[in-house]
Amino acid sequence: MHRTGRSSAPLHNLSIQINTSTVLDKYPGAECNNPKHVDEPDCHVTYEIEHDRLTLWLPPIDPRRVVWVGRGSTTDEALEKYDIDDAKYTNRLETFLKQKLRSSNSKLFVLHVDQAPIDLTDNSSIDHEHLQPAVDACRVIKDDHEIKLIKKANAISAAAHTEVLRNLRRFRNEAQVEARFLDVCVANDAKHQAYEIIAGSGTNASILHYVKNNEPFGDRQLMCLDAGAEWQLYASDVTRTFPLSGNWPSKEAKEVYDLVQRMQTRCLNYIGPGKRFLSAHYLAHATAIDGLMRLGILHNGTFMEIFQAGTQLAFFPHGLGHHLGLEVHDVSPLTTASTLPLQTSELPTLELIAEPDLEMVLSLASALPEYDPGLSLCSAPAPRLKPGMVITVEPGIYFNPYALDNIYLKHPVHSKYINKEVLKRYMPVGGVRIEDDILITEEGYENLTTAPKGEEALRIISGGA
Amino acid sequence: MHRTGRSSAPLHNLSIQINTSTVLDKYPGAECNNPKHVDEPDCHVTYEIEHDRLTLWLPPIDPRRVVWVGRGSTTDEALEKYDIDDAKYTNRLETFLKQKLRSSNSKLFVLHVDQAPIDLTDNSSIDHEHLQPAVDACRVIKDDHEIKLIKKANAISAAAHTEVLRNLRRFRNEAQVEARFLDVCVANDAKHQAYEIIAGSGTNASILHYVKNNEPFGDRQLMCLDAGAEWQLYASDVTRTFPLSGNWPSKEAKEVYDLVQRMQTRCLNYIGPGKRFLSAHYLAHATAIDGLMRLGILHNGTFMEIFQAGTQLAFFPHGLGHHLGLEVHDVSPLTTASTLPLQTSELPTLELIAEPDLEMVLSLASALPEYDPGLSLCSAPAPRLKPGMVITVEPGIYFNPYALDNIYLKHPVHSKYINKEVLKRYMPVGGVRIEDDILITEEGYENLTTAPKGEEALRIISGGA
Repeated sequence: MHRTGRSSAPLHNLSIQINTSTVLDKYPGAECNNPKHVDEPDCHVTYEIEHDRLTLWLPPIDPRRVVWVGRGSTTDEALEKYDIDDAKYTNRLETFLKQKLRSSNSKLFVLHVDQAPIDLTDNSSIDHEHLQPAVDACRVIKDDHEIKLIKKANAISAAAHTEVLRNLRRFRNEAQVEARFLDVCVANDAKHQAYEIIAGSGTNASILHYVKNNEPFGDRQLMCLDAGAEWQLYASDVTRTFPLSGNWPSKEAKEVYDLVQRMQTRCLNYIGPGKRFLSAHYLAHATAIDGLMRLGILHNGTFMEIFQAGTQLAFFPHGLGHHLGLEVHDVSPLTTASTLPLQTSELPTLELIAEPDLEMVLSLASALPEYDPGLSLCSAPAPRLKPGMVITVEPGIYFNPYALDNIYLKHPVHSKYINKEVLKRYMPVGGVRIEDDILITEEGYENLTTAPKGEEALRIISGGA
Repeated sequence: MHRTGRSSAPLHNLSIQINTSTVLDKYPGAECNNPKHVDEPDCHVTYEIEHDRLTLWLPPIDPRRVVWVGRGSTTDEALEKYDIDDAKYTNRLETFLKQKLRSSNSKLFVLHVDQAPIDLTDNSSIDHEHLQPAVDACRVIKDDHEIKLIKKANAISAAAHTEVLRNLRRFRNEAQVEARFLDVCVANDAKHQAYEIIAGSGTNASILHYVKNNEPFGDRQLMCLDAGAEWQLYASDVTRTFPLSGNWPSKEAKEVYDLVQRMQTRCLNYIGPGKRFLSAHYLAHATAIDGLMRLGILHNGTFMEIFQAGTQLAFFPHGLGHHLGLEVHDVSPLTTASTLPLQTSELPTLELIAEPDLEMVLSLASALPEYDPGLSLCSAPAPRLKPGMVITVEPGIYFNPYALDNIYLKHPVHSKYINKEVLKRYMPVGGVRIEDDILITEEGYENLTTAPKGEEALRIISGGA
């Protein structure tokens, strides 16, 4: 019987483990390691570790509810459909757990104590502290089945992104983009989005979580579409940025797009097993500084001075990525510590060089373990990438009028490094983000995202696909 | 300044009223009586009744959040956009409320005490009991602005239903119906459905809240599509049932459709100001019994015997309708009391008649104030309809295999009245429901629902539209 990695998926809700032998999980729609997904409400699962026995507990069928919400599986049907050892009804669960607790050496591990089917207070055999971190740790590494689901979510997202591109020239409003994206996903049985669709045209692309999606395109240059389907509870997370006309609307738009693409390519070339994601994050920021200096948007300082000031945060104010799985921002952070750019430091001097040297940036990064440009998630040490991790790599460059006018251009240090005249030409670009879902493999990585981007996207918009 | 009825809309979340002079309402996206809808998060509103002064309290703009979620209105922008007397920032709200409470005769009415922006405990000037029922009572009668919003929601729903019909013959799966419905709504800026879409083909139509919407049509006869857009927080609630092929797939399907249409027409002919909705509900049930007897599905008893037994609940197990407004099942119930069909009663004898006599059914109904076939909502006395109420009228006839096999055909009384041989022919019909949103007027009613139905729907499916 195939058991590898199953624990990572079904245990995301409530779990109880007895005698180091039983796991119980209340999961309204959890995922067994089986093509057939348990999407029935009010189920629990117990796992008796010493017997390697997984039991699905189903709510008894209530005839009065069947006409309203349909009938759930019988135990016989569940045994047939799902990859489980046994199926029982939940009205016998309390007795089962109490019997287990009565036996010697019993211990019950609970994932979420407030969802426990029995009163767990005042019972020293019950532990509701250790299972959650264990499950979270399991969730960091995805097994083959989970990767298959993330790939399928990505395949549906790719179909939806493609359909948006195909129809883009007849769309007039952000709402039509969101609508068609949803249409393709739902028609393919991906009923839920992994997160709220972000379809920002023009300056709206510079609002990272812009979800209104209700403005006409007018003469705006680009759209940033951050949208990913969920498949059997597993997320995809895909961002594409493309010209609304199908052609590059300005030299500046193309330049910013190319810079973000370079940021992503560099990071992808770097990452792999054993590498620190935080270092890739630095690399993206270093590439952003380099690129913005080449464009003339950043000036009046050396690469190192700007890096130390963190002025690039005006244009790239977020982290490079995050884990992806049952949640779109899945368990365990990828970047660390402080939310502020480093103010002072014993940095090695590093002059701006034509092409920032990878090794130099990385050694710089490793010398700065507490420096985390952009949004940081917790204060744990930056982890190293391992095969089986699925992460997003999503650099971006944005021109947010409010942030620039009210923060950076008023700041005594940052304002010095930003060339206001050059910046003006770039403001209509709005924002560019490119995001792919990356599986870390033994050899390096596999890109799970298949949505068209770059010139291929432009060809589809123009009807070349 | 136009103030009529405004209280009904903006007060649905948290409200506080001071000195019988101030109402405070925390509303993430409430509706002012103004074409411009306040859809900004974390706002409050206060209403000082003695000064007739409505103040919108906006969260102060946090520069760090603007790049993530965009910028909210300034007070000046809010005054320009919304139908309010004043706009202030919420950081001054606590002081404002405390000052009000310090003045003589002050009283503060709170809608939801747990959302209050200040500590309200141990203050005898604070009342969080009386505002909610007052607001609920206001919400029962809709003003012109609210009716306009419900009409707009219905117009979008009609467009979406029509688009589904136009494409139906190339669809192969329920999911495609849900997908296209969503597409049209979202593309028209109706980002939220008023409730989960129900797109049940064949027997799935007999599950009242079937929302999986993921099965292929195969050779199924009908689809029951219960789907309505929300517009600026106001709901529409629309059900249409139609043959998947565009032609009546069987005599039985047409017969059941015609019966449900007759149930609805009768109820609509009856309702109007001063009428009890519960009586229309009885009328629908009486018409169902009559129709099912004519079809031969119910037999072996008189109309009255079956009415007393409640056997029609096997085929029409729900209420006739509900209020519609900010919620799809809006405040205040329309039907009453017991959940069980009447078991014994001092009923006047009523023989089955070719066409159930309206007056007789209604006098029967009025003699049975506690008899509420189908789902009942509370034990309040059945209210009378008034101009300005918006209600749904949604009769249905269903053939739910589980309910029939496991409840009604096993029941000693009901099983006698159901003709199993005839029933077999009707099972593939699945279910039919027809639902329109009805505004009660001084003269009678206005049907706010414009989605095509009946023969018009068939013409659209067949390409005749």
